[in-house]
Amino acid sequence: MSTMRISDLSRSSGVPIPTIKFYLREGLLPSGTPTGRNQARYDERHLRRLRLVRVLVGVGALSVARTREVLRAVDDPAVPVHEMLAIAHTALGPPPGAPADAGTRVETDAFLETLGWQVAPASPARDELATALDALRALGWDVTAAGVFRRYAVAIDPVAAAEVAFTRATPDRADQVERAVVGTVVFDGVLSALRRLAQEHHSSRADRAAKGDDVKPLT
Amino acid sequence: MSTMRISDLSRSSGVPIPTIKFYLREGLLPSGTPTGRNQARYDERHLRRLRLVRVLVGVGALSVARTREVLRAVDDPAVPVHEMLAIAHTALGPPPGAPADAGTRVETDAFLETLGWQVAPASPARDELATALDALRALGWDVTAAGVFRRYAVAIDPVAAAEVAFTRATPDRADQVERAVVGTVVFDGVLSALRRLAQEHHSSRADRAAKGDDVKPLT
Repeated sequence: MSTMRISDLSRSSGVPIPTIKFYLREGLLPSGTPTGRNQARYDERHLRRLRLVRVLVGVGALSVARTREVLRAVDDPAVPVHEMLAIAHTALGPPPGAPADAGTRVETDAFLETLGWQVAPASPARDELATALDALRALGWDVTAAGVFRRYAVAIDPVAAAEVAFTRATPDRADQVERAVVGTVVFDGVLSALRRLAQEHHSSRADRAAKGDDVKPLT
Repeated sequence: MSTMRISDLSRSSGVPIPTIKFYLREGLLPSGTPTGRNQARYDERHLRRLRLVRVLVGVGALSVARTREVLRAVDDPAVPVHEMLAIAHTALGPPPGAPADAGTRVETDAFLETLGWQVAPASPARDELATALDALRALGWDVTAAGVFRRYAVAIDPVAAAEVAFTRATPDRADQVERAVVGTVVFDGVLSALRRLAQEHHSSRADRAAKGDDVKPLT
């Protein structure tokens, strides 16, 4: 394996040297092999770890402490590979807010049950859903979990299946975490942007339909 | 129309009196009818406006200045109702970042063209998509706009159509804005939470399938 100096590591990764030194001090990047006073050599493994750190800190906006936790799980052979997704979700999800109304939470859980989704009782996204339902009701909307969420669940189900298949298509733990993090963070924004574009399209389509223009569905 | 004191307005809306006074000072809520020194009466229209302000400031996290702009559009009969959605999107979307790579933007626009979506060239979500594609490529992912976005676009299209139909099902401008804002803000979180739950389900499903257990698709 060829080795490189910190300046080469910086050039190859696009990460500035002071940032690399910060990651080294914080233990996010393992030390290189010392080659003299204040000099060390780095290799491919450092380049790959640096890339994962950039994904976690840059794309995922994780704190240094959270990043350290995720890296510890990646490096711990006792943590099963299929738990990488749960670890990424816990690290990336919104911070837990006030717990949702207990009745709303029961209703949301019952709805997830009807989908047949196998989800841990402690998954924080359960409470996020219940909190959203509470927010709608506080606005006076007369809605149920099934009435509000089902359409979104059915639409997102095949997308999530494809994402999981992609994440699992690599045997490498660090790659799996990278895919799970990027999938969660970057694609939240992609979905939000595409939804606004699709809404704009359908809004303009409704205007044209009202004028009698011909419109056809997306296939 | 029955009238009420500021204390009744607070009780009916759940908004504290100091907050109502702040909205009055900032011009987000029109003054009541004066009934004496430092006293005024409010009516149903104040209650409804207060609710819309809470949606914009509370749910949408809009600044006071942005909220004032949206309310001005709601109150201006010269602004067509079908522009409420675009106004909500512009007020709620992420702040414009650095423009995406010009080539990526051309590729993203060409992809949206293949969907047949009628979207204004200036829609900020176009650049958000292109920026996401740039981010993936900066990570070394060998991806195209069509390869990455199509699955998400096809999944979100019928959801957006239903959302637009719901938003337009009321003739009232303030109600349309409320629905567009809540639809954009609350349901971004709902989609994100459901996606993580679905990923968890499919991940655990893949584990069970690997063990030979029987699994069936969501219908």
